[in-house]
Amino acid sequence: MIDDKVIFANIVIEDDRIKYIGDKIDKYKPFDVVYDCEGNVIMPGFKNAHTHSAMTFLRSKTDDTSLQDWLFGSVLPREDHLKENDVYELSKIAFLEYLTSGITACFDQYYFPMSTAKAAQEMGMRVVLLGTYNKEFDLVQKLCDIYHKLNDKDGLVKYCLGVHAEYTLGEGELEKVVEACHLLKAPFYTHISETEKEVRECYEKRGMSPVQYFEKMGAYYYGGGGYHCCYFSDEDIQIFKKHGCYVVTCPGSNTKLASGIAPISKYLENGLNVAIGTDGPASNNSLDMFKEMTLVYALQKVSLKDPSALPAFEVLKMATVNGARAMGLYDSDVLDVGKKADLIEIDLSKPNMQPINNIINNIVYAGSKDNIKMTMINGKILYKNGKFYTKEKPAKIYEKCQKISERIEKELEY
Amino acid sequence: MIDDKVIFANIVIEDDRIKYIGDKIDKYKPFDVVYDCEGNVIMPGFKNAHTHSAMTFLRSKTDDTSLQDWLFGSVLPREDHLKENDVYELSKIAFLEYLTSGITACFDQYYFPMSTAKAAQEMGMRVVLLGTYNKEFDLVQKLCDIYHKLNDKDGLVKYCLGVHAEYTLGEGELEKVVEACHLLKAPFYTHISETEKEVRECYEKRGMSPVQYFEKMGAYYYGGGGYHCCYFSDEDIQIFKKHGCYVVTCPGSNTKLASGIAPISKYLENGLNVAIGTDGPASNNSLDMFKEMTLVYALQKVSLKDPSALPAFEVLKMATVNGARAMGLYDSDVLDVGKKADLIEIDLSKPNMQPINNIINNIVYAGSKDNIKMTMINGKILYKNGKFYTKEKPAKIYEKCQKISERIEKELEY
Repeated sequence: MIDDKVIFANIVIEDDRIKYIGDKIDKYKPFDVVYDCEGNVIMPGFKNAHTHSAMTFLRSKTDDTSLQDWLFGSVLPREDHLKENDVYELSKIAFLEYLTSGITACFDQYYFPMSTAKAAQEMGMRVVLLGTYNKEFDLVQKLCDIYHKLNDKDGLVKYCLGVHAEYTLGEGELEKVVEACHLLKAPFYTHISETEKEVRECYEKRGMSPVQYFEKMGAYYYGGGGYHCCYFSDEDIQIFKKHGCYVVTCPGSNTKLASGIAPISKYLENGLNVAIGTDGPASNNSLDMFKEMTLVYALQKVSLKDPSALPAFEVLKMATVNGARAMGLYDSDVLDVGKKADLIEIDLSKPNMQPINNIINNIVYAGSKDNIKMTMINGKILYKNGKFYTKEKPAKIYEKCQKISERIEKELEY
Repeated sequence: MIDDKVIFANIVIEDDRIKYIGDKIDKYKPFDVVYDCEGNVIMPGFKNAHTHSAMTFLRSKTDDTSLQDWLFGSVLPREDHLKENDVYELSKIAFLEYLTSGITACFDQYYFPMSTAKAAQEMGMRVVLLGTYNKEFDLVQKLCDIYHKLNDKDGLVKYCLGVHAEYTLGEGELEKVVEACHLLKAPFYTHISETEKEVRECYEKRGMSPVQYFEKMGAYYYGGGGYHCCYFSDEDIQIFKKHGCYVVTCPGSNTKLASGIAPISKYLENGLNVAIGTDGPASNNSLDMFKEMTLVYALQKVSLKDPSALPAFEVLKMATVNGARAMGLYDSDVLDVGKKADLIEIDLSKPNMQPINNIINNIVYAGSKDNIKMTMINGKILYKNGKFYTKEKPAKIYEKCQKISERIEKELEY
């Protein structure tokens, strides 16, 4: 059950899962480790339901341009120089950043997804990869193989299917991915209706909206979702509702690239599921769920001229439980017995949490990254009191990524 | 000179001021304290150019309502129960919060301003009080006396004149404050054009906009500024320009209360000075300049459908140098020899600052409170590595404020 109840209790964790929540902990003793939360809040970790983690190399390098100029003029030419190992290194900066914001899982779409997977496994980050049809996975069977390989075991890395976007589809690409979705009974995800231009050109080309096109092609037969969703028609909304698809809103990216404001309150009124993503660090430029939550409620309240629109608890559910379910992480959605120990500690001893009149409103309306005292993924503390407990030291990761960023810039000059 | 140059240098500080910036520091040796910034960025502290610090007791208690309901239905009835000492205690939580966000000065308007002053002096916070005509200062002479008392010495607390707003003016109040402004050659500040309702009703009542009314009454003869400024007409813009008045935009409050989006890019194009304020913790609910900077650029880019609107450096200037000048703090505006040592250290070793492609864009587009490694006001380090170096322990302050908040709630029930 999802409620806004804040209770006093102990949490017993065994390996990667929650074994017990309550006061009667004697029968679980002795404990290997006892962690005193000193009256702070323990809650499910935030779920970043749309990102391109390895784009850290482009942070603050491609600012203040439109999505089209940004993508085709600045991002893609640089991405041409990306190597497999670059993605492995560059993803790690993003994973560190997720930990500082209490993000315990991300839904990642990028080149060389297996490099992102390798980084996630080494760092202890939970990742759902959005696998697409590409050079690496150019056959339906290969997509199915990797899908089984990653999803059939209880690991940190999971795999979903999708495409980049309607406007970048290659010849036969969608058909193959949809075939794989049907074979696997798998949901389908893609960037969708992010800009007015995208939707207008889809109508010109196909006589219908991107959502209608993907439905017509059978993509949503087993559900799924869309990233951005700024420009859904009423018919698009009904299609998403019919298939139980998730809207993943990315207000940091949509404002910075001036793409638009997704009508989230309207989607909720129509019964859609909504989750939140940061998008990649090249278009946002931060990977911070507090920033995204702020923008989600701020944009709805001000654009609807309704201060009661999208109250705090709705936003908090989007950033946690809805995000998990959008990514298929049904084991990491809430704090309950048997669920994964993917949780965070909110530091109430920081001044922005005081006085404590309403904890949930404090977190959503006043919270920030400096309230993240501890981040635990899969039962392991990876971040505590500003320090990382990952395998590799941050300074080493930064050094390697700075070199990659500078190398690509040099290669671009030639 | 204000530029976006990032240089490597040493800063020599003597007492409360910057004595030297550069490499030739030998002649200033020996030093009492040497602080190694380890390659991090030192920059002027943020200036919170509009707030009501002591409203911390109302945080998360009055959410999701319109400005009018919020103010008249929820805030004012509770404020009736505020005592002088409450304001002293409640201000301290806000001051701690400013330190965590690298805010080194605030422009504060509230009841019992001398209680806020006392808290600021004890905590080491720099405050400019907006003194208004009220029970405490019911004569022009009293306003002039306190103005001289606080401004004639080089202290942490300064004093400006103004009123709350056009729509809450008492009989003869404005005339007396304007008389004091003229006697003192002092600028004038007020909440202004915050909501459509306020502007519409001013036209109905006075046949002109609030800005036109205050100008007609001679309030802007020595300059000043306005808080919020969401609904300026072209004529209002010209009036502000003519008098060199400052627009203080408060996007956190304006979005949460659904008041509107101030057309900041238009103001800048018309040559207005723009600074940024958080507004009080009851309407925002946080006191975080990173959040405000995000909202400032996000709202302009998306509302103008122009991703190049309001680039990072413009926003950073608003949050620092413009804020200082809006508050009359010409000694705390930039880092230069002879200026006050009001400065902050930005931690570049956090993942959101990596790689370092563009430091200013990193700070504005990706920064957050967890990048504030150190906050110094008046030459004193008050916050470092998440710890406060203030006279009173935070836990003690929180305890007293929680009691005040609960006491007022109880009094309200009777």
